[in-house]
Amino acid sequence: MKTEALKNNLLEKIVSLCKRRGFIFPGSELYGGLAGFWDYGPLGVELKNNIKKQWWQDMVYRRDNIVGLDAAIIMNPQVWEASGHTDSFTDPLVECKLCHKRFRADQEDKIKEHEDKHEQTVEWTEPRTFNLLTEVYLGVTEPKEKTYLRGEITQGVFVNFANVVSSTRVKLPFGIAQIGKAFRNEITPGNFTFRSREFEQMELEYFIKPDEKEAGKVFDFWKKERLAWYAGLGISQENLRFREHAADERAHYARFAEDIEYHSPFGWKEFEGIHHRGDWDLSRHKLAYQDSETGEEYVPWVIETSGGVDRAALFFLLDAYYEDGERIVLKLNPKLAPYKAAVFPLVANKPELVKKAREIYDELRKHFTVVWDDRGNIGKRYYAQDEIGTPFCITVDYQTLENESVTTRDRDTMEQGRVKIESLVDCLQKKLGH
Amino acid sequence: MKTEALKNNLLEKIVSLCKRRGFIFPGSELYGGLAGFWDYGPLGVELKNNIKKQWWQDMVYRRDNIVGLDAAIIMNPQVWEASGHTDSFTDPLVECKLCHKRFRADQEDKIKEHEDKHEQTVEWTEPRTFNLLTEVYLGVTEPKEKTYLRGEITQGVFVNFANVVSSTRVKLPFGIAQIGKAFRNEITPGNFTFRSREFEQMELEYFIKPDEKEAGKVFDFWKKERLAWYAGLGISQENLRFREHAADERAHYARFAEDIEYHSPFGWKEFEGIHHRGDWDLSRHKLAYQDSETGEEYVPWVIETSGGVDRAALFFLLDAYYEDGERIVLKLNPKLAPYKAAVFPLVANKPELVKKAREIYDELRKHFTVVWDDRGNIGKRYYAQDEIGTPFCITVDYQTLENESVTTRDRDTMEQGRVKIESLVDCLQKKLGH
Repeated sequence: MKTEALKNNLLEKIVSLCKRRGFIFPGSELYGGLAGFWDYGPLGVELKNNIKKQWWQDMVYRRDNIVGLDAAIIMNPQVWEASGHTDSFTDPLVECKLCHKRFRADQEDKIKEHEDKHEQTVEWTEPRTFNLLTEVYLGVTEPKEKTYLRGEITQGVFVNFANVVSSTRVKLPFGIAQIGKAFRNEITPGNFTFRSREFEQMELEYFIKPDEKEAGKVFDFWKKERLAWYAGLGISQENLRFREHAADERAHYARFAEDIEYHSPFGWKEFEGIHHRGDWDLSRHKLAYQDSETGEEYVPWVIETSGGVDRAALFFLLDAYYEDGERIVLKLNPKLAPYKAAVFPLVANKPELVKKAREIYDELRKHFTVVWDDRGNIGKRYYAQDEIGTPFCITVDYQTLENESVTTRDRDTMEQGRVKIESLVDCLQKKLGH
Repeated sequence: MKTEALKNNLLEKIVSLCKRRGFIFPGSELYGGLAGFWDYGPLGVELKNNIKKQWWQDMVYRRDNIVGLDAAIIMNPQVWEASGHTDSFTDPLVECKLCHKRFRADQEDKIKEHEDKHEQTVEWTEPRTFNLLTEVYLGVTEPKEKTYLRGEITQGVFVNFANVVSSTRVKLPFGIAQIGKAFRNEITPGNFTFRSREFEQMELEYFIKPDEKEAGKVFDFWKKERLAWYAGLGISQENLRFREHAADERAHYARFAEDIEYHSPFGWKEFEGIHHRGDWDLSRHKLAYQDSETGEEYVPWVIETSGGVDRAALFFLLDAYYEDGERIVLKLNPKLAPYKAAVFPLVANKPELVKKAREIYDELRKHFTVVWDDRGNIGKRYYAQDEIGTPFCITVDYQTLENESVTTRDRDTMEQGRVKIESLVDCLQKKLGH
């Protein structure tokens, strides 16, 4: 649990760490940036890939009745008409009558902040709905064909429902899992990567026979599974909660919706949504399912779990951040840490040490992502690894040359020990929970 | 090597197999499709992920001086002005004066085909250049802000060059690797997924000190590495070749370029490009590098390897396709195969067999992607697995209950053997080259 002092400016500290150590850079920074777009650096791409890999492992490979999919970002615009997104995928906007800047009507803090900037009383227009789909134009003949970047990856699953059923012979209940980018023309992106215009989703659409009782059971099952997933990867329980959507805040497709929220420095925020979409999507796409045994035909219902990869990355970083005097440490779950171990020769100018360390490094990298460092002194190297969440440091020292053992050092306890070289792979595998 | 009979209609056979077994579906098919967009089904996403994972393993993890990156798809439009893409990322177009349809001037077969459709002589306009960047509009105030979907993932690397150097302290020579989607407003997408409007690239930008001799050496090194990568993953040598670009076909940024080509059913086609981009990009972005030891400052040169994930997937499938009577088999490298093994109980109505098979399945899935099948007879199950490239089938039969061994069957040789259950993980690991 974090102290109050630690919580102070936590978001700013994470933004700074991300830039300094190569997790996340502002998009197009060289050209003054582009609001709501972010680039993942050398460590960020590893963190993000680890999150996606773990999600796929736990949602697809570990389960019997879930298959994957990877649909295109750009679809025929009729998909978005059928799904209701061209009509209903909107935010309410108000416009400042003095300067014509627009804000989301529900973001009172931003509206207040804006009012304070003007030296006279601000009047606002009535809220007007504004569509969040991002327009894109295709073709070579004017006028070009207008379509959209997908506003949610979900629709790619629904329009392929029949293809998946016929090509894999899955039977209800079953799920289709997908990870991919979505785009929203957000008016006020902000809170670092939390609200972005380009972001990555990881979603499961789980299809069931239409039945309220079954739907309730499945909904509860996935709620618990998903919360447990985040907790199992290290998010503190006290920073996680469920929140039920009120009827008037549900998306147009949702019969019932609950969020997993994280207690972030900018308040309790949505981490992942569990949605009971009913038969909304499949019926809008005029799709049905035939039970191969009974011959019965119906439109399945859908329970969806919809998480954000970027939000997960941000919340994992926030939750893992600790300070201890001058030491900054990311207590990331080893499965998520960009590097599983760092290998050091005690000093860089002793060829025997360097050679031995190099052998260990080359052996370990066959199994794990590991990093090499021979700069500065050991203490500095430990600190540098702590700051990027490397769970385990391995130092080749003079004793190594005598008895084939190395000094190991644990990120969280800072405890040191000696491990035989031949046991290092097992030792790391244990840390990773294999 | 494929017989002539086998080569007949090979592309059509692959398209059909991909649809039937869930590798690749036409994008937005439910709404009449959208030219140049494709969705990857349950098996396709595994194949594609395996290609990407293998590439990352071999290009980033295996090497000392290469780090990863994952930049946004949408960037500030100034990036594309600086990089020369708004001016020079063009195709020459001619327009039919009778019906005003447009075609790429260099695609003579398509032009001929179109001429044949008209019953009178066709006149064409002079070629006019047409920009391939896909336009996208952001913001809420009209006129909205025009920018582009990235036409190549490369620029995300260059604009982050300084960020990567300062956050990781890499030293020249070093590389930045990236995998991600790019978009081109292609006039004539075609040949299945070969020329798409949305596609995924896997690229390395390798930065070196400006020096012609060094550049030549590095260029040759990567040419060989990349060809060996494809060959090592199973593409037949006789279907691979290098082709040097003539001066007038090089992209605007390239000093020198060579393609790795694949002998596809639609001719020798680009698989991957190796480009000597010189200092084009970094100088356009006004970036330089300072040698931390000598203090010398200069603009590095870039040798790039640029491959397409979708093209790789297509060519791996084409190359792996064989027929043998009624048997269709995808001889995919086990590293790329969607499933590494299939597990069957000999018959589905003997609980002891099912239970034992299930135990083996649950053990193997901890280590590999495996699939379960208990439908129909064993022969049919073998055929179904051959068609999707599963290298290894494992059958639990009556003998299993006696001596803890299973019947194994090899996809390529069709040879059967018996393996002890306790050796199965090792046996599969060997097949995978671990």
